[in-house]
Amino acid sequence: MSIDSIDALVSLCKRRGFVFPSSEIYGGSRSAWDYGPLGVELKENVRRQWWKTMVQQRDDVVGIDSAVVLNRQVWETSGHVREFTDPLTECQSCHKRYRADHLVEAYEAKHGREPANGLADLVCANCGTRGAFSEPKMFNGLMKTYLGPVDDEENLHFLRPETAQGIFVNFKNVETSARRKPPFGIAQTGKSFRNEITPGNFIFRTREFEQMEMEFFVEPGSDEEWHEYWINERWNWYLDLGLSEKNLRRYEHPKDKLSHYAKRTVDIEYRFGFSARDFEELEGIANRTDYDLSVHSAGSGVDLSYFDQAKGERWTPYVIEPAAGLTRSVLAFLVEAYDVDEAPNTKGGVDKRTVLRFDPRLAPVKVAVLPLSRNEKLSPKARELASDLRKRWMVDFDDAGAIGRRYRRADEIGTPFCVTVDFDTLDDDAVTVRDRDSMKQERVGLSQVERYLIERLPGC
Amino acid sequence: MSIDSIDALVSLCKRRGFVFPSSEIYGGSRSAWDYGPLGVELKENVRRQWWKTMVQQRDDVVGIDSAVVLNRQVWETSGHVREFTDPLTECQSCHKRYRADHLVEAYEAKHGREPANGLADLVCANCGTRGAFSEPKMFNGLMKTYLGPVDDEENLHFLRPETAQGIFVNFKNVETSARRKPPFGIAQTGKSFRNEITPGNFIFRTREFEQMEMEFFVEPGSDEEWHEYWINERWNWYLDLGLSEKNLRRYEHPKDKLSHYAKRTVDIEYRFGFSARDFEELEGIANRTDYDLSVHSAGSGVDLSYFDQAKGERWTPYVIEPAAGLTRSVLAFLVEAYDVDEAPNTKGGVDKRTVLRFDPRLAPVKVAVLPLSRNEKLSPKARELASDLRKRWMVDFDDAGAIGRRYRRADEIGTPFCVTVDFDTLDDDAVTVRDRDSMKQERVGLSQVERYLIERLPGC
Repeated sequence: MSIDSIDALVSLCKRRGFVFPSSEIYGGSRSAWDYGPLGVELKENVRRQWWKTMVQQRDDVVGIDSAVVLNRQVWETSGHVREFTDPLTECQSCHKRYRADHLVEAYEAKHGREPANGLADLVCANCGTRGAFSEPKMFNGLMKTYLGPVDDEENLHFLRPETAQGIFVNFKNVETSARRKPPFGIAQTGKSFRNEITPGNFIFRTREFEQMEMEFFVEPGSDEEWHEYWINERWNWYLDLGLSEKNLRRYEHPKDKLSHYAKRTVDIEYRFGFSARDFEELEGIANRTDYDLSVHSAGSGVDLSYFDQAKGERWTPYVIEPAAGLTRSVLAFLVEAYDVDEAPNTKGGVDKRTVLRFDPRLAPVKVAVLPLSRNEKLSPKARELASDLRKRWMVDFDDAGAIGRRYRRADEIGTPFCVTVDFDTLDDDAVTVRDRDSMKQERVGLSQVERYLIERLPGC
Repeated sequence: MSIDSIDALVSLCKRRGFVFPSSEIYGGSRSAWDYGPLGVELKENVRRQWWKTMVQQRDDVVGIDSAVVLNRQVWETSGHVREFTDPLTECQSCHKRYRADHLVEAYEAKHGREPANGLADLVCANCGTRGAFSEPKMFNGLMKTYLGPVDDEENLHFLRPETAQGIFVNFKNVETSARRKPPFGIAQTGKSFRNEITPGNFIFRTREFEQMEMEFFVEPGSDEEWHEYWINERWNWYLDLGLSEKNLRRYEHPKDKLSHYAKRTVDIEYRFGFSARDFEELEGIANRTDYDLSVHSAGSGVDLSYFDQAKGERWTPYVIEPAAGLTRSVLAFLVEAYDVDEAPNTKGGVDKRTVLRFDPRLAPVKVAVLPLSRNEKLSPKARELASDLRKRWMVDFDDAGAIGRRYRRADEIGTPFCVTVDFDTLDDDAVTVRDRDSMKQERVGLSQVERYLIERLPGC
């Protein structure tokens, strides 16, 4: 997707109610976005598909929902208070702040090599000055808050920067109450908060964002195999929901750049197209070894190992973690769905049309019901149909303007089917169902419409 | 429900995986709870039913999802920075802190009158000292955080204490993009954060909690009628999902105690049974007048009024707000569902059984599949059935222990149906379906099980 298209997509997102700049009437918030009527449905559909695949349809994964503000000790033990830092540098000329590692990555992507003299070779994208970057300082990304009446050290807490730790500290409670043994997983979706130095690229990097994380606990020795399994499962999940293979790639983290807890990490990257790297991370799948349960055992004094009755052995499970960004996934599905093609107009020619080719399971609205005109007989019939279909799906009712314009409106938000109630309907009790992608129309009996749509909207 | 039963419910919640004390291995967090494998499903089911009723099935309400950290000006304008305060008092003897208004309310509920000498008449529940309370100080409940590298006044932000303001500041964007005219509503669910002085009563009052709020924008003059409409709608929603009328009541806020923005507020209260008042707020339905849009118009300089083309008039919509607590609703549905009755045992007598009588739409697990014994023929058949049913619902597979114990386990988490695969199944290709409430059993052909359950699990 070209940068022009990305601008067009951001504009469509605001105009049609997918994503608004947050607190826009007050000049916006720092890097936050609000999801509008269509965005909230799209995001929820992505989340539900993830939950369905990762929890509901499996017998070896259960879900949880832990708090945003956990006991502070969780973040001391996990290493976040110490290690959750990014290198912050500032252009001494214009005072714009950057992440030093991102500057270097961008240089490498452009020139195919590292900058010979480090930051001194780099140019500030804001003011054009070369080599004016300050020595990077490590900056902790945990967002603080205070519980209780006084803002002091005792009351200091953190907003979670990831949902994963809420899973590790609940490992024992879940294992016991849900009566599970490794291999099994615990999944969670929800908001996380990071004090990002350089939020940007629309909803790609924001200070609050939503994650879909699953921690899969396995016997040491079986970890590498399970890691491969989950890389494939997650890859196929994106393909199944419509991302195309040419826009996806795997990125193997170099051994010397792995996080302190990881034995191996593979990212699934998507061609968002807004950066010099072209591809950016959609999901990371890490082999976290027994790091998490070990440090929390030591930190809390609660034994988080597992007694393997079959083998008569005690071991600490290894963790395979597929950690996806929900809000990033939403962006990827939007970028992938965005298309411009041609549709016939009433003058026998063709017009350009913008269409979001969402998988029907992700489309925010499944069906648009369109009475051909505002008429005292057509309108009630159309409203009745819309009301029936709403028991099952999100349905639009649109009776404003020419039918062609209404098709364009439905295409532009990715609605898979339009159902038109016309004057013939009053005689033949049938309606015209139009397919978003083929634009083909079919006449379907009113009593058959729901069944017709159920067949064409599987899993919705 | 008696206090004993509440203790039993809290214990069941932990033991079976509905609700765990947050960060328990580190001694807990302050007043936070984590939702376990069953709790997360129950909570999600309540949310979905709300969304279905309030958004999906209506043609006059749309949803949004706004950020937790909004522009700070939102909270200056809304009045929260100034007015979002509670009276904090401290027992001078044991230093326990209380909300002064809650102490007075509890006294009134017990004695049927106000304390003649105010706080001086009251006894500290913690240490038993009378009249040792300090003069109440107003304490602001907004939780702070900082965006950006320095924790200074410029970077100070607040975590939202309610989702409502995120709706008001998006009014114009939603109205335009979704092409709506009053009367119409905007709905939102999500986390809010309040620095409560006295969190407590399990998940009833916590510092982070989830809300389900809807702001319905109407023409001035039609507000009182719409207010009544929404009080009834919301009342019926709780009844429909299983709360009994005897445990619900309406509480009309006295005129002299109304919030600064409200013309009239009616709470729907539920008999949680843990406080002196017995009933506590489940949902507040307020007529907020044009307060919100007016102050945000003035505060932002953006005109948030509506031009009524039919009348040729411009007016600022009034707002009717049904504001429900998602986590409180979960507690109410748990309290209501909790029951102890008797079930036949294998010795021809009866045993006590604990059963959660959830409406099937709310039950975390819809079906339990139980192979009569761990057997190389029964187990695969049962697993195959479970796997088929999982495409549609959350399904348990349980093959551990005597069948009676497994029924008890399913009853205790409110699973509406148990399906037993037994040795006859190998001959007659049929299974035994048992109903949670009547405990009646019916033989159903394997190929008919899904249809049998679909008919008995409407809306699930």
